[in-house]
Amino acid sequence: MIAVDAMGGDHGVSSVIPGLAIVLKLRPDVRFRVYGHRDRIEEALSGQPNLKSAVTVIHTDKKIESDEKPSAALRASKGTSMRMALEAVEAGEAMAAVSAGNTGALMALAKIVFKTLPGIHRPAIASVMPGIKGESIMLDLGANVLVDAETLVQFAVLGAVFAKKQKKIENPRVGLLNVGSEDIKGPEHIRAAAEILKKIEFPGIFHGFVEGDDIMKGTVDVIVADGYAGNVALKTAEGVGLLIKHYFKESFNSPLAWLGAMIAYSSWKKLKRRTDPRLYNGGVFLGLNGVCVKSHGGADALAFSQAVLLAVRLARYGYIREVIEDINHVSQQERFLTPEVED
Amino acid sequence: MIAVDAMGGDHGVSSVIPGLAIVLKLRPDVRFRVYGHRDRIEEALSGQPNLKSAVTVIHTDKKIESDEKPSAALRASKGTSMRMALEAVEAGEAMAAVSAGNTGALMALAKIVFKTLPGIHRPAIASVMPGIKGESIMLDLGANVLVDAETLVQFAVLGAVFAKKQKKIENPRVGLLNVGSEDIKGPEHIRAAAEILKKIEFPGIFHGFVEGDDIMKGTVDVIVADGYAGNVALKTAEGVGLLIKHYFKESFNSPLAWLGAMIAYSSWKKLKRRTDPRLYNGGVFLGLNGVCVKSHGGADALAFSQAVLLAVRLARYGYIREVIEDINHVSQQERFLTPEVED
Repeated sequence: MIAVDAMGGDHGVSSVIPGLAIVLKLRPDVRFRVYGHRDRIEEALSGQPNLKSAVTVIHTDKKIESDEKPSAALRASKGTSMRMALEAVEAGEAMAAVSAGNTGALMALAKIVFKTLPGIHRPAIASVMPGIKGESIMLDLGANVLVDAETLVQFAVLGAVFAKKQKKIENPRVGLLNVGSEDIKGPEHIRAAAEILKKIEFPGIFHGFVEGDDIMKGTVDVIVADGYAGNVALKTAEGVGLLIKHYFKESFNSPLAWLGAMIAYSSWKKLKRRTDPRLYNGGVFLGLNGVCVKSHGGADALAFSQAVLLAVRLARYGYIREVIEDINHVSQQERFLTPEVED
Repeated sequence: MIAVDAMGGDHGVSSVIPGLAIVLKLRPDVRFRVYGHRDRIEEALSGQPNLKSAVTVIHTDKKIESDEKPSAALRASKGTSMRMALEAVEAGEAMAAVSAGNTGALMALAKIVFKTLPGIHRPAIASVMPGIKGESIMLDLGANVLVDAETLVQFAVLGAVFAKKQKKIENPRVGLLNVGSEDIKGPEHIRAAAEILKKIEFPGIFHGFVEGDDIMKGTVDVIVADGYAGNVALKTAEGVGLLIKHYFKESFNSPLAWLGAMIAYSSWKKLKRRTDPRLYNGGVFLGLNGVCVKSHGGADALAFSQAVLLAVRLARYGYIREVIEDINHVSQQERFLTPEVED
């Protein structure tokens, strides 16, 4: 059972409900608790008999606006579709929650409703990234800004367990995002985290430092960054995608271009599929005592379905239980460590 | 007159000399002092009568290896092609120096030979970035890691003057690279720099915070970042470029794909030209009392020519003189400022 906020994002029910239909095709056994305005949800469901029987609608006409300040949203959050979806997970009525709504409000609410896991300093946002050698997991994407070395080490654990559950890798290779200039070893908190990760035993293999281009090269399975560098990397990657799309539109604008494109149609389709950012939609909140996935606000049905599938996978394979054990194990080792940082 | 280190980079003279030939075609009045092994340079020049008359060869068989530690390279730098090129600028024999060699060593040497400009806290590396609405200037790309607010303000000045000289914009719009998550205003040094830039008068218009995707959207003319975020953004952009290139190769691998590509040939050529990273080669060291451009180590002739053209432009239009005035003006205003940072 997945709890879904149907009122979040730019398109609300009109991408949420068709999105769930896509999920149901791939995971016929999954059921949904959908929170939002009954009439709109029913209307969107009307065309989907199969989905209808998999959905339980819980009515509320209260929602959190995408432009609300998290602090304000929090005060008025009781009975909103977003909060009710999270509370369903907390109450054990659902295994995970998904929302396309206000990121700041969702993170703030998730912290309050789920609580941070015992021993975890700060939750992080993680996402699956495409790469030449295959997908990788990157965190933190902006739940925090600059953090200390111990928090980065915890992110390494959160990310490594994610990789294990998501991609069935026994010992994920974990890299710390750092700068590449030869004479700079990077900021102190990154170097200090590396010193700890070299020494401790955690659910992954520490690869060392990686640079921005290693994210897409697939050099490691997990890229660990503070929320500052992680968010800059994520947004920059989005920007380059937009730029190249723009260059395409500008270059392929002649009848001949179209003819050529038609002839190479299957290749174009393949390329379109490979470069479709919607397939990488879904930011997972890690380090909380409950699974919550944030969908992009502009997500359409296909994009939203990917966020829900991410939630299904994590909820299924006991992610949280394993994280609790590993975090304890790591913090016990850290007690005997005094990281030496060269300056 | 441009001083050129002919021994740097993966290809040495074999991309440096043909690169200078490309520059000479576009700027027939430019002359070059080329530092390196005479025999190899003469050999590369043999096929280029026009270029030959524009080049003065200064022989040295000493070079700095690309994998040398800057500290070690520094000690053994006397008489190397890289150092001699920088010293030519210092001696007034050339207006700017260009090298494709060891970045760390080049920055360390440039600091020693040129000295940092009066009042400048730290030099920065800047580069031209492509964008949907046009090019922009981004700095710092990794000369530093985390810096304080005042240093970021100086980067804003260095970048704004660069934009004025490079793109003839009277009042460049300057943005501070920051994270996008709604409830995070970013690291304290970024917020403190914004507080200062809002209040002072400097050779640009402060736009406020920008996110990673704004770099390629062309939201502003100058993107200011610390070397940590700036380097992560630059390398991530390179990585996405590589990934999409890889998707292309994988998708267009059938006879039909090739036929289609042939028919749409002119569009492909246009696209290739627009997305050619070589056209953006060249990292400029700003804040020093001399102009030095670092070319990518793997640069071919076309890429190297772009780095040289960047050096020509900056050397011509009195970049350094204007920076000195503006930095003084800014630091005088800062004395009367106590930035308030909200937490």
